[in-house]
Amino acid sequence: MPNWTLTYDDFNPAEEPLRESLCALGNGYFCTRGAAEWTTGGGDVHYPGTYLSGGYNRRVTEISGRPVENEDLVNMPNWLLMTFRIEGGPWFDLDKVEVQHYRQELNVESGILRRTIRFKDAEGRETSFVSRRMVNMDKPHLAGIEWTMMAKNWTGKMEVRSALDGRVSNLGVKRYRDLEPQHLEPLSMGTVGEDGIVIEVQTNGSRIQVAEGARTRVFRNGDEVEVERTTHQEECYIYQDLTFTVKESVPLRIEKAVSFYTSRDRGIYEAAIDARTAITRAGTFSEMLRGHILRWEQLWRRSDIELEQEVRTQLILRVHIFHLLQSVSRNTVDLDVGVPARGLHGEAYRGHIFWDELYIFPFLNFRVPEITHSLLLYRYRRLDEARMLAQEHGYRGAMFPWQSGANGREETQTMHLNPTSGHWLPDKSHNQRHVSAAIAFNVWQYYETTGNRGFMSIYGTEMLLEIARFWASIGHYNPDRDRYEVHGVMGPDEFHEEYPGTTEVGLKNNAYTNVMVSWIMGVALQALDELLDYRRQELRETLQLTDEEISLWADMSHKMFIPFHGDGIISQFEGYEDLKELDWDGYCEKYGDIHRLDRILEAEGDSANNYKLSKQADTLMLFYLFSHEGLRNIFANLGYPLDEDMIGRNIEYYEARTSHGSTLSNIVHAAISARYDRDKSWQMFCQALESDIYDIQGGTTKEGIHLGAMAGTVDLVQRGYMGVEIRDGVLFFDPLLPQKLNGLSFNMRYRGMWLDVRLTDDKLIISPRPGGPDMVRIGVRDKVYYLKSGYRREFPL
Amino acid sequence: MPNWTLTYDDFNPAEEPLRESLCALGNGYFCTRGAAEWTTGGGDVHYPGTYLSGGYNRRVTEISGRPVENEDLVNMPNWLLMTFRIEGGPWFDLDKVEVQHYRQELNVESGILRRTIRFKDAEGRETSFVSRRMVNMDKPHLAGIEWTMMAKNWTGKMEVRSALDGRVSNLGVKRYRDLEPQHLEPLSMGTVGEDGIVIEVQTNGSRIQVAEGARTRVFRNGDEVEVERTTHQEECYIYQDLTFTVKESVPLRIEKAVSFYTSRDRGIYEAAIDARTAITRAGTFSEMLRGHILRWEQLWRRSDIELEQEVRTQLILRVHIFHLLQSVSRNTVDLDVGVPARGLHGEAYRGHIFWDELYIFPFLNFRVPEITHSLLLYRYRRLDEARMLAQEHGYRGAMFPWQSGANGREETQTMHLNPTSGHWLPDKSHNQRHVSAAIAFNVWQYYETTGNRGFMSIYGTEMLLEIARFWASIGHYNPDRDRYEVHGVMGPDEFHEEYPGTTEVGLKNNAYTNVMVSWIMGVALQALDELLDYRRQELRETLQLTDEEISLWADMSHKMFIPFHGDGIISQFEGYEDLKELDWDGYCEKYGDIHRLDRILEAEGDSANNYKLSKQADTLMLFYLFSHEGLRNIFANLGYPLDEDMIGRNIEYYEARTSHGSTLSNIVHAAISARYDRDKSWQMFCQALESDIYDIQGGTTKEGIHLGAMAGTVDLVQRGYMGVEIRDGVLFFDPLLPQKLNGLSFNMRYRGMWLDVRLTDDKLIISPRPGGPDMVRIGVRDKVYYLKSGYRREFPL
Repeated sequence: MPNWTLTYDDFNPAEEPLRESLCALGNGYFCTRGAAEWTTGGGDVHYPGTYLSGGYNRRVTEISGRPVENEDLVNMPNWLLMTFRIEGGPWFDLDKVEVQHYRQELNVESGILRRTIRFKDAEGRETSFVSRRMVNMDKPHLAGIEWTMMAKNWTGKMEVRSALDGRVSNLGVKRYRDLEPQHLEPLSMGTVGEDGIVIEVQTNGSRIQVAEGARTRVFRNGDEVEVERTTHQEECYIYQDLTFTVKESVPLRIEKAVSFYTSRDRGIYEAAIDARTAITRAGTFSEMLRGHILRWEQLWRRSDIELEQEVRTQLILRVHIFHLLQSVSRNTVDLDVGVPARGLHGEAYRGHIFWDELYIFPFLNFRVPEITHSLLLYRYRRLDEARMLAQEHGYRGAMFPWQSGANGREETQTMHLNPTSGHWLPDKSHNQRHVSAAIAFNVWQYYETTGNRGFMSIYGTEMLLEIARFWASIGHYNPDRDRYEVHGVMGPDEFHEEYPGTTEVGLKNNAYTNVMVSWIMGVALQALDELLDYRRQELRETLQLTDEEISLWADMSHKMFIPFHGDGIISQFEGYEDLKELDWDGYCEKYGDIHRLDRILEAEGDSANNYKLSKQADTLMLFYLFSHEGLRNIFANLGYPLDEDMIGRNIEYYEARTSHGSTLSNIVHAAISARYDRDKSWQMFCQALESDIYDIQGGTTKEGIHLGAMAGTVDLVQRGYMGVEIRDGVLFFDPLLPQKLNGLSFNMRYRGMWLDVRLTDDKLIISPRPGGPDMVRIGVRDKVYYLKSGYRREFPL
Repeated sequence: MPNWTLTYDDFNPAEEPLRESLCALGNGYFCTRGAAEWTTGGGDVHYPGTYLSGGYNRRVTEISGRPVENEDLVNMPNWLLMTFRIEGGPWFDLDKVEVQHYRQELNVESGILRRTIRFKDAEGRETSFVSRRMVNMDKPHLAGIEWTMMAKNWTGKMEVRSALDGRVSNLGVKRYRDLEPQHLEPLSMGTVGEDGIVIEVQTNGSRIQVAEGARTRVFRNGDEVEVERTTHQEECYIYQDLTFTVKESVPLRIEKAVSFYTSRDRGIYEAAIDARTAITRAGTFSEMLRGHILRWEQLWRRSDIELEQEVRTQLILRVHIFHLLQSVSRNTVDLDVGVPARGLHGEAYRGHIFWDELYIFPFLNFRVPEITHSLLLYRYRRLDEARMLAQEHGYRGAMFPWQSGANGREETQTMHLNPTSGHWLPDKSHNQRHVSAAIAFNVWQYYETTGNRGFMSIYGTEMLLEIARFWASIGHYNPDRDRYEVHGVMGPDEFHEEYPGTTEVGLKNNAYTNVMVSWIMGVALQALDELLDYRRQELRETLQLTDEEISLWADMSHKMFIPFHGDGIISQFEGYEDLKELDWDGYCEKYGDIHRLDRILEAEGDSANNYKLSKQADTLMLFYLFSHEGLRNIFANLGYPLDEDMIGRNIEYYEARTSHGSTLSNIVHAAISARYDRDKSWQMFCQALESDIYDIQGGTTKEGIHLGAMAGTVDLVQRGYMGVEIRDGVLFFDPLLPQKLNGLSFNMRYRGMWLDVRLTDDKLIISPRPGGPDMVRIGVRDKVYYLKSGYRREFPL
């Protein structure tokens, strides 16, 4: 199965941190990075083990006199720890044996990491191991490791050490190492029955109790082998040593079943008690495997995207879907967690929640909208905090923070390090107020895709109204222009924080932001309109929403100011045209990698603020989020022209001035190009696909995968190549395959109807499955059709 | 407002525990019993303060060497504690002053408890206080107390003590006092700014962290008064003393704002940190009040039931609705809590979850189905535990426990005390397997009322299938009868645990249970049928549900055995007819109150098992849960006759043999009588209304209100007098007013459509509000109509 399995045929210590991240296993609820258990030594290595799910964040504060710093995405007690020794020799060390064979395979179809190794030790004993590992997708509190070992040419005594190690630290990101790395306090340890151990720790800031249980057993021919077992405890570290006899050429199976609970879980009594119970009920590895594999099979049935030909592209796409589904899943639906920028795969960004949902929603909305529903509730629960943030800044409504902490508090750093210059610099990225626009966009996309009015009635509309209110309060009316303006913000492009040589906060009239504001005012009013009378009344009373505000919003939806310069170029912000042009060729020649021009320029005593250049798509985000058709409507509504020619010129203009300093940038540009430069789009798509696989940013993948970028590639196929967009209650398809692709197919759920969608080079076939709503409206290119449940349709292209 | 306010015009120490329970304030999230803060002394009284929400249960176990017993519905640190003294005299003591005026008013319209007192102290100083208190329905983490005081004839120094007291115990139920009453361990205490204090404790079994903050301020004419403030800490107890000058005839306002967080909350960082933040943001009492009153107003708009005339009945009905809405509310929707039998109002039954939802769902389904949805998820999260319980007893599927603990574990007591005889007796009530039938019934009712297919697809159908599977496995086929039977269970009537003189477990073929099983098999198969194909496939794979099982269920739905005796009397269970008749008149004469005949008989050396008598409705539950029409269909489906005459005879037969030892029994009998004996029904309805108001069981109300009975009275109006039932997708009305009632009106939401329903003595008026679905089907008596959104209809009766 070459397109389901990521395979490495060697052991390469230099690449291990990257592979760990790429081969991490998770089930939404928790995640374990993929290092071979037998590389983790005898117990004194502080190794990233299991991550607590996202949103438990950095906090510099003092609780009862204890200063607590940098508690973020906390590494959980390491349960991977298993090692062995033969005949009382040294504990296994990969460097001290002759490795005859080594292979590592991540099977994304079934969510199993498999490693095989055969080695000869100093005594000439040859031994083989097959290790399989899962983090159970079906039973989210369970995980397991199974070793199948065989002595090739010896018989003798073997000892296995199986541990739960709470002495872990957060040391996975080099530049954070000056921060306090210790986040766990021991609570309790003990045994469970004969063969189980349990450890309970507590995070030292958020005081979340975390308990893990482990049960280690040995089997020969399906029968449990009696072993000599001793249990040992050290500070925050518990392990069992199992001693038993190995016979030449008779395979043995060693199984470690693991349970994982936190005090934030539901349906529990107390984490350690439930972890104990779970471990005694877990069953054997293969019993656990049944449900795990079935669940993955069911997930793939909903989520796979099949590409004709293109085996490698297919594999990477699936690896991306796989990581997406194990960062958020059915198992997170009932938890209060957001999507951290790096999934649960690494410590970078400390688990803070940015705007990555914007890239993640489109894929999930059409397949497992229960997940996006849950992610929106995560935001809704933090609406009050966003209200407070607005208030603190003198605004009304809800202003969501750029980097959102556990309780929704602003956690954006105020200083950052330029590694190129070694300077610590003020960081103003919190002025990216557009995150509130992204949340509004996500609310509306969810609603458009699912038609879930209940959600809108209780949660969605309130969020939209409060976000609209925020924009109304940060904006102001400029009578000279008879337009509304927003000052003091940043766009998505983080290279531009302010105007050169001023002390003024932020920028004026960021085009992306202003267009989004116009759009938000429209959908907020539409959402309010669509409520049932009683609910509209309730919400208006609760929010004290006046007629005047509603009129203002209606006005703003038609009258936001958008700056232009030159020949119909939308200015990224007002005054952009006055900035200098950069000598791109010169810098490229001088520095090679110019992704991070901001750092280069700052090190030169210059500033990215002075130039016409972007880290990532900013104005072009508009062409990504909306189809040309959709965007033309928005511009027409605002009284600005936007013809096809202008669109092309704008794309060209900004593409020439973008350094792609964010992995998200490739996605956006690939999607935009899909319409008019298929080769280029394909090329950027392939580059985006390799973001993590080849760690194109040079070292950031080992700090965790880029979940937004991964989801973005998947969405690119749907949005860019299949041309999927919902507009005015119609699900539009506007397919255009890259030349390298002969066809593709996937399923999607739209307003309760499941569609099997298949695209060949000359037709689009849509098969709505029976059941669900009787009819939905779809569009192919610019024609609208009624699609009847159960009746397949073909559209020649 | 006589029909919105429960008023007591005296201070009566003997009645205080009852009033506390009846005047408890809550918002679903937490609840505070209503004793006057100035009766709680100087801080050393272990007083029931604030309750942690339901489902945190008794557990006899050992954690890290500490035995923990009876941690159940735990009393939270008491934040009510406020007292005062004048001119350095003794702390206020009601017994040591001359009370000139005292009034206590619970206003259920706005959720405010108000007390006024005027007194003269030993020095001849006259002082008046008005205390208002709320537990905020709008901001669930907040509560507040406001005192408005006036010195009538003196000027001088006053000290107010404002405390958070974590030294509370569970001592509210006398017969539990041998159990360990201490459940809180101190974690931390401290100040917040100048005027705030905070306390954090942890429950000692479930290790839930609970934090409370309080901020106490004094105002004169709207301006904050500077006070001398000292903070004091003792073990698990923190308080501030505020000293200030009081001027004759100038009113002063003393406000205590309170925040409450637990580690199980969502959207938080850490309970104590969030409690600190919340208290600084809380605002003044009147600022808090705005949202609180508005939320109650909105709740009443949805939930009120208006009776024409009958002022007192109206008031009690509203008190019942009030307590229902403050035990479960919008604020609990996002929590993992069930409905304890006593709400959050008292310690009886230790917060365990029984089958009370059966009585609570009908009212909420039609008004705030988000709440019933959340209560069903509470069960769904414990489905695995119910599976384990079935497995432990040798069954398949899901067997929910009679008394469900925090993590869904069986918590039914195995011994109980007969206070009449002083004997400890084995308790077999766990054999009430019918709780699983009640849960299935609730799932289906929720679905029928809301039409929420998404819920069924993800959660509901799985629950129904697993419950059906359980009944299939506990049942067996009897070839002699060509019928399926269930042995070894108890019905709802707890007087019958087993057959006289046998050691056999439970009873055979409890009629109520067997009919429910037949009904469950039908709806489980219907639910499976209604799933979309892909989802049906997923569920069948996951549950490994075979064709054979499905055939068996279909068979059982038609062939459950129902025992009969005499002239068409449904036997409560097989062999019921062989039991002795009781000399009811004799026992009534001898003992007076014979509600608890089981205790009386046991004390006499006899047993309730020997007699034809019931504690509460058992067979008659069928006539309560289903309309005659509905029940006739079920019996016809089973091949048993059931004509109107038989129904009358059965009701008469069992009514004559029921002691009503449960508050739920009056409800059921009143509802059943509504159809054919209106006077009797009204009389029983009134009796049920008084259950808690007059504490008719003699002392149990002070252990907490009977939430099922309260909800039942409300449902009685809807079900019994309006004749509301959903049958075959039609919402039927079959109104029949008791003679005492001239008319009634309420709102209800059915499948997304809001209906204003009004009944007069000669017509039924149904006004569907605009919006929502275009059309729903309703029935009036036996005719079916299409009701179009926005178009009112009148039906002459």
